[in-house]
Amino acid sequence: MAGNSFGTLFRFTTWGESHGPAIGVVVDGVPPRIPLSEPDIQHWLDRRKPGQSRFTTQRREPDQVKILSGVFEGQTTGTPIQLMIENVDARSKDYDETKDRFRPGHADYTYWAKYGIRDYRGGGRASARETASRVAAGAIARKILGESVAVRGAVIQIGPHKIDRARWDWAAVEDNPFWCPDRQAAQAWEGYLDDVRKRGSSAGAVIEVVASGVPVGLGEPIYDKLDGDLARALMTINAVKAVEIGAGFAAAALSGEENADEMRMQDGRVAFLSNNAGGILGGISSGQDIVARFAVKPTSSILTPRRTVDVHGHDVEISTKGRHDPCVGIRATPVGEAMVAVVLADHLLRHKAIADARNQNPEAGT
Amino acid sequence: MAGNSFGTLFRFTTWGESHGPAIGVVVDGVPPRIPLSEPDIQHWLDRRKPGQSRFTTQRREPDQVKILSGVFEGQTTGTPIQLMIENVDARSKDYDETKDRFRPGHADYTYWAKYGIRDYRGGGRASARETASRVAAGAIARKILGESVAVRGAVIQIGPHKIDRARWDWAAVEDNPFWCPDRQAAQAWEGYLDDVRKRGSSAGAVIEVVASGVPVGLGEPIYDKLDGDLARALMTINAVKAVEIGAGFAAAALSGEENADEMRMQDGRVAFLSNNAGGILGGISSGQDIVARFAVKPTSSILTPRRTVDVHGHDVEISTKGRHDPCVGIRATPVGEAMVAVVLADHLLRHKAIADARNQNPEAGT
Amino acid sequence: MAGNSFGTLFRFTTWGESHGPAIGVVVDGVPPRIPLSEPDIQHWLDRRKPGQSRFTTQRREPDQVKILSGVFEGQTTGTPIQLMIENVDARSKDYDETKDRFRPGHADYTYWAKYGIRDYRGGGRASARETASRVAAGAIARKILGESVAVRGAVIQIGPHKIDRARWDWAAVEDNPFWCPDRQAAQAWEGYLDDVRKRGSSAGAVIEVVASGVPVGLGEPIYDKLDGDLARALMTINAVKAVEIGAGFAAAALSGEENADEMRMQDGRVAFLSNNAGGILGGISSGQDIVARFAVKPTSSILTPRRTVDVHGHDVEISTKGRHDPCVGIRATPVGEAMVAVVLADHLLRHKAIADARNQNPEAGT
Amino acid sequence: MAGNSFGTLFRFTTWGESHGPAIGVVVDGVPPRIPLSEPDIQHWLDRRKPGQSRFTTQRREPDQVKILSGVFEGQTTGTPIQLMIENVDARSKDYDETKDRFRPGHADYTYWAKYGIRDYRGGGRASARETASRVAAGAIARKILGESVAVRGAVIQIGPHKIDRARWDWAAVEDNPFWCPDRQAAQAWEGYLDDVRKRGSSAGAVIEVVASGVPVGLGEPIYDKLDGDLARALMTINAVKAVEIGAGFAAAALSGEENADEMRMQDGRVAFLSNNAGGILGGISSGQDIVARFAVKPTSSILTPRRTVDVHGHDVEISTKGRHDPCVGIRATPVGEAMVAVVLADHLLRHKAIADARNQNPEAGT
Repeated sequence: MAGNSFGTLFRFTTWGESHGPAIGVVVDGVPPRIPLSEPDIQHWLDRRKPGQSRFTTQRREPDQVKILSGVFEGQTTGTPIQLMIENVDARSKDYDETKDRFRPGHADYTYWAKYGIRDYRGGGRASARETASRVAAGAIARKILGESVAVRGAVIQIGPHKIDRARWDWAAVEDNPFWCPDRQAAQAWEGYLDDVRKRGSSAGAVIEVVASGVPVGLGEPIYDKLDGDLARALMTINAVKAVEIGAGFAAAALSGEENADEMRMQDGRVAFLSNNAGGILGGISSGQDIVARFAVKPTSSILTPRRTVDVHGHDVEISTKGRHDPCVGIRATPVGEAMVAVVLADHLLRHKAIADARNQNPEAGT
Repeated sequence: MAGNSFGTLFRFTTWGESHGPAIGVVVDGVPPRIPLSEPDIQHWLDRRKPGQSRFTTQRREPDQVKILSGVFEGQTTGTPIQLMIENVDARSKDYDETKDRFRPGHADYTYWAKYGIRDYRGGGRASARETASRVAAGAIARKILGESVAVRGAVIQIGPHKIDRARWDWAAVEDNPFWCPDRQAAQAWEGYLDDVRKRGSSAGAVIEVVASGVPVGLGEPIYDKLDGDLARALMTINAVKAVEIGAGFAAAALSGEENADEMRMQDGRVAFLSNNAGGILGGISSGQDIVARFAVKPTSSILTPRRTVDVHGHDVEISTKGRHDPCVGIRATPVGEAMVAVVLADHLLRHKAIADARNQNPEAGT
Repeated sequence: MAGNSFGTLFRFTTWGESHGPAIGVVVDGVPPRIPLSEPDIQHWLDRRKPGQSRFTTQRREPDQVKILSGVFEGQTTGTPIQLMIENVDARSKDYDETKDRFRPGHADYTYWAKYGIRDYRGGGRASARETASRVAAGAIARKILGESVAVRGAVIQIGPHKIDRARWDWAAVEDNPFWCPDRQAAQAWEGYLDDVRKRGSSAGAVIEVVASGVPVGLGEPIYDKLDGDLARALMTINAVKAVEIGAGFAAAALSGEENADEMRMQDGRVAFLSNNAGGILGGISSGQDIVARFAVKPTSSILTPRRTVDVHGHDVEISTKGRHDPCVGIRATPVGEAMVAVVLADHLLRHKAIADARNQNPEAGT
Repeated sequence: MAGNSFGTLFRFTTWGESHGPAIGVVVDGVPPRIPLSEPDIQHWLDRRKPGQSRFTTQRREPDQVKILSGVFEGQTTGTPIQLMIENVDARSKDYDETKDRFRPGHADYTYWAKYGIRDYRGGGRASARETASRVAAGAIARKILGESVAVRGAVIQIGPHKIDRARWDWAAVEDNPFWCPDRQAAQAWEGYLDDVRKRGSSAGAVIEVVASGVPVGLGEPIYDKLDGDLARALMTINAVKAVEIGAGFAAAALSGEENADEMRMQDGRVAFLSNNAGGILGGISSGQDIVARFAVKPTSSILTPRRTVDVHGHDVEISTKGRHDPCVGIRATPVGEAMVAVVLADHLLRHKAIADARNQNPEAGT
């Protein structure tokens, strides 16, 4: 199947290049009669929008979304919803000199090798601009999940500098340009990133996304496990190199006694005494918070000249002068949230397909 | 779509429970005229087979594979290949006391909550026994990839003990019961794991899989990126909690200058001067080694009594007395290799579908 | 995606060749806690079984089904259900002389041209033997649909001889070897088919399948319309050349006034005054009987020598001496029922995924 | 999977309602480096465009297509191609009186029952306006098929009036407003349809689509047979009630001797002596012309008042006064061609994925 779609029942397909006339996404499988309007989507797009601080690209894109189909008199109709965002500030001239040269760390070489052609303007289809479409789809996914499910992201590391988890405060996340839950770390990052930015260098980041209120039972073993789908969803975000769930890589160093989360009944419900599992057991949500973490590599567009080759097979050098995020990880945060939301929405619908049948057996487990 | 299938053009579906009569896999989309026989598959199954050292479960399963369809006169025919492995040493009595109790760290509770019913014998469908089917499918995938592609795995950490990468020797991997590429580490692990085993405890592990000889151009952006599919493939293996590609989480701490792999022409081909990307750029293979790493949590079946609840909603305790791997990560190594192989085989076929058309344009890039 | 699977949420994959050790089907996406045992499936297989009258092939296959997975203590568990049927009466010697020659009307030539290899024993994968797997899957689909939905088939034409619809009696269908609802026609067919059989010739047929009790709302426009999926489902049955819904081809000759089924309220529900639509409007079930009809070509295996070519590119002749159905259309009837049932079961689950969400809006239409 | 997509490797998703701001289609899986421009697509859209004769709807839609992505410097890039057509002549007031009433023969009732909401303006998503998106996708499919494959449609019956196949002349098809290959029939239809139109009635039609130059080997048995996919593709076109391949329903009345197409070598290639199979054997193209036929019911929008019910559950009457095609079958012809083209393009790519691998076996059959 062609690669620009995601999801099974809640399924979206994105399209568009960085410097084409527009980008967008068609979202299929949305249940009917859900109230939906452009501001519902715009709210989330604005969080990803470039140019909101000196730590993100200065490209000025209003990222104004238009609903072209699938909504009637303020409600979804069950038909596909086309969302379009016009490209406004696409300065193609910025990219003229990189036209024939493959920027290290970018997809220039691999797109050219795979397709024999590439839209070299701003990364073309490989540009992180595509992630606006993900955020738009995520906004609809949140509507399906409803208000009882919250999907929130936070940056927990920039460059080598990690937050102190003891200082975690969700309220802080909206207060600084880094989506940082640790106010003290946010201040330190400001100086660090200013320095990175001025040197024309870049920094990586680690983002944590937490989904609360997720019902027990989402995920379809064996190959459509919830964590498998989350891993794919997050790994496909531009520049992501790693994904972990719950204790993640640290689980390898734990003993069996430490790792397996014990259970007790609390208020008539199963409660876990820890969350190393990150809310997923056997690929199925356990009712605990879903905790996913992902690493974003440093922006590959930097001022320092780098060795590369060109389309003619010559050794050359390149430095990137365009408007770039010194740390793309920051703007990846709302994208990570969106990808977690779309996975959950899809699995919610998938579970309903079989859960409903089960309910006909009144003696069923839950 | 139901969750027991994996892949798009090379697509397999596994079936079977730990203590049912048999497990197996039907592999669809295999190109015709590939020589294939049972020993070709058995070779790889034997590497995953339990009971090969004191560090893996003592369940005695010959894991003898039978080809029931899709092969004629020693060659694949393009029709689905059904592989069946009979369960032989299924001692259900071992599991009688865990019938009503949810083992912490296992999928007992979530399967029960999702489906309202669970096959409690040895984990049922959630048992790692299912991974034999993955290895069988992987054996066919290797045939599609051909001899120019090598997919090899190694354990690089057990519990908190990591290998020294400077001592990496692929030849060592077959010499010790841990698939360890560092002979010195392997010796240390022996003592460590003996202790873990005797205490009835368990340990986690980190496995690295390297695929060499992979052609440039595999992977279908945006959502079927090669790294996205690898992340999903590896994360769906039992007990896996984290996946990374190339520099992985460490990339977050690198600067843009350090991270982006520079390029130079060498012998008329593009060569990279480092491999932080792990062989994938923009979701497409670059021709470098594909490097994937995943973390396996410690076996949840341990002797120490643990707090849990039962199906009647009572607080109880449980300890697991069955025959278990003190470190499931060891046997996850051939499974990880298999999953990397199936992803690559699928993307090889997918790429051929469009590459072929491109070849009609003689001026194409590569 | 490889071609041996059918369905989206209720999804099955068949495997096996006419003269291999076994055939079978793995059924995924079955909701949990549905009572299921081998006799439930055997019942339907016995209706398709060869050798039940002189009008079907004399191959003696007990077609005994085994459940290898997915059922625990008499109930489905939500995991994949593997059903296996061993081949017993596979006389490969019957086929030796057709090994190198392409039988006209069969898939011999096209399989060979597509794959460069073919299992020439009894048609290999292209044999109608595969349809036993469909019937097995259909038996599970019926369980999902429940007792309020009835899916029944009848042969309404054999060779040029049609039934008189005024004499339609469902009770008659089980009384004759043709699944014929018109007792008088059944008698006439007996003489006609005896003659066809003795001459070593063959006859085609038209089958009608009617599904009653189907709820309103099944089908996912635009491309997964219920009638589109039924058309694909029925057209993929061996030897089928045509499919129609409701008035079908005859609709072309009707006027708009005659064709569009009028509506009236009856007992508080919408009732249609005719059923030219065959129970489907805009790709969605209307609550009326679903009526589908399909044509089966005459068996291509006949005694008369026919002109053909061989694998070496020579003009040759061939006549088929094996044991064949003089009218494969007869045994296609339970297969057609099964295919209608699997389409309905899949769409029932798909509809539940979104219908459930809708129920949260109490003012919804139905 | 949500229902608005079609195809596996060549896969498109349509969106948009009759009276929304625009309709469109995103086409994924298009191989790179295919020359493509808006006029290439417009050419085919113009054939389906309304208002070209007095026998089609008088709605004035220029159906001007815009390429929003996936094409760079005149060539496809392998990324998704978004095609958008703005709605211009959408007179919503025409539909005010049908807002609460279900038009017989239309999808009004079933959409409302399924979704609990419907866009009543001009049929909303169920409008035949959606078929413009199919034609646009078909234009790209033709590019993939290349100039050696021709896909042509013709109307062979309007109302009860069939053509005389002996007078078939492809050149005639472009000469009359009915795509009729029989000039004499075309003249007769003119009078017949004028009468139908003046009475405010409507007529059905049968369309035949022939694909020539299709290579041997397309189609993926068992469930993705070429004829199965064609049946689904054509049956999903608005108002289609029947599909047949080759001899179709007439095959049921043939003897085995008459039906199975004999073969002979001609000029070193396999040639068939007849084409009852319609170019498909065992679900795989045989190299003969692919011949598919489909029936379109008469337009359900007629002037004569018809009995129906309304959303409040009352018995009412309705007559439709909007601008409608007296015979929608006419404009279904380019749509039928498009659907055949998209099926062939998809299977061409799918076959390449495995054919290419086969070529590595030099002794392969073809």
